Amino acid sequence: MGVIEEEFTNITDLVLADLEKEMLPIGSHGLCLVYSTHTTACIRLLEDESLLRKDMHDFFERLAPSHCLYRHDDIEHRDVPPDERRNGYSHLRAMLMNHQEIIPIVNGVLDLGKWQKIFYVECDPNPPYRSDRYFGVKIMMDTQQPHGWIF
Amino acid sequence: MGVIEEEFTNITDLVLADLEKEMLPIGSHGLCLVYSTHTTACIRLLEDESLLRKDMHDFFERLAPSHCLYRHDDIEHRDVPPDERRNGYSHLRAMLMNHQEIIPIVNGVLDLGKWQKIFYVECDPNPPYRSDRYFGVKIMMDTQQPHGWIF
Amino acid sequence: MGVIEEEFTNITDLVLADLEKEMLPIGSHGLCLVYSTHTTACIRLLEDESLLRKDMHDFFERLAPSHCLYRHDDIEHRDVPPDERRNGYSHLRAMLMNHQEIIPIVNGVLDLGKWQKIFYVECDPNPPYRSDRYFGVKIMMDTQQPHGWIF
Repeated sequence: MGVIEEEFTNITDLVLADLEKEMLPIGSHGLCLVYSTHTTACIRLLEDESLLRKDMHDFFERLAPSHCLYRHDDIEHRDVPPDERRNGYSHLRAMLMNHQEIIPIVNGVLDLGKWQKIFYVECDPNPPYRSDRYFGVKIMMDTQQPHGWIF
Repeated sequence: MGVIEEEFTNITDLVLADLEKEMLPIGSHGLCLVYSTHTTACIRLLEDESLLRKDMHDFFERLAPSHCLYRHDDIEHRDVPPDERRNGYSHLRAMLMNHQEIIPIVNGVLDLGKWQKIFYVECDPNPPYRSDRYFGVKIMMDTQQPHGWIF
Repeated sequence: MGVIEEEFTNITDLVLADLEKEMLPIGSHGLCLVYSTHTTACIRLLEDESLLRKDMHDFFERLAPSHCLYRHDDIEHRDVPPDERRNGYSHLRAMLMNHQEIIPIVNGVLDLGKWQKIFYVECDPNPPYRSDRYFGVKIMMDTQQPHGWIF
């Protein structure tokens, strides 16, 4: 997929493609886990709206500014190479989000709301850009239909 | 259930009623996923204490104030009707919480802690109140008992 | 395991020990849920780095200071004993994190990233220290392998 240069990447279609390949029969239910194996990258259900993404960027800059000093970036006091990434702020942001989303599968399709899209959120997006980022999709099937409550 | 007029709604009894209907036999184990299909509503395990709910309200007002300007609410620059909800702050709050909670089922009952109640958290509670909010409950059963660690 | 005196406890080895006991055969896949049954204790995937833990401590002190006044701690207005813990700040912090992490099991082993460790995060770490804290591990097995995407 190339190199991640953005904070927010809509991966809904990739996950749907995975599900389609499984060719789940009508009437099959289950769970779909979408997960990141990185400490500074998260999976989130978000609306896909470009102005909102800028709000989210600003929000996290306010909560955990990228230009502040963090002890984690005091490279001399850690047993790491001198060119180690300065990403203390990325860890703090990732701690507030989650590394997985679990979406139910109902009758063979993801039970996502109208505005819910699956996003890969890169909390450490500065150059040098990464070409080694990964997320996984794990499906668990059974026959039990979810029950819904309407307020 | 009528109209949501509150930020915090304790839905524990609704979920328990779902589980009871399943009449799970003693010795059955599994997972119970409680999930929201809205981008601005979350599911959280919280203590049911009215003063704490006010603390939580104030906390989120401080983190993502409802009266501030957000780009997402710049309706003229978006392809939406002019009466679109102004809920940029709601999206930011929801991003910090989660759209699901997964609670283990042990011997046919939810393994909730003494103070853990399941809450539907409405991040966009302003009028006009919504009558279209939804949450789902998905049960996955197996026979494997959880293992617990006491500190 | 004795008494919790720290905010961050790396419990990865305990969870791995649980998995080893199950002696999952090569080729078995599934999910591993690690969960807390406390309202003021969370489970998080974090890097195990001591300076970062201090950053995280300071970060939460900034977001929800432990010395501030919270309504939840106005003990006289609640139906609780006079020596009830003052832990309003703990609830607010826990609300921003999660009570569970779900980690896929691939070929019998946890699919954790290189830097991802499982942490028990105590949001109410002040004396008197607790000797009653608990977390659980629930395993769900099946045969379906996850699918991975590399960016």
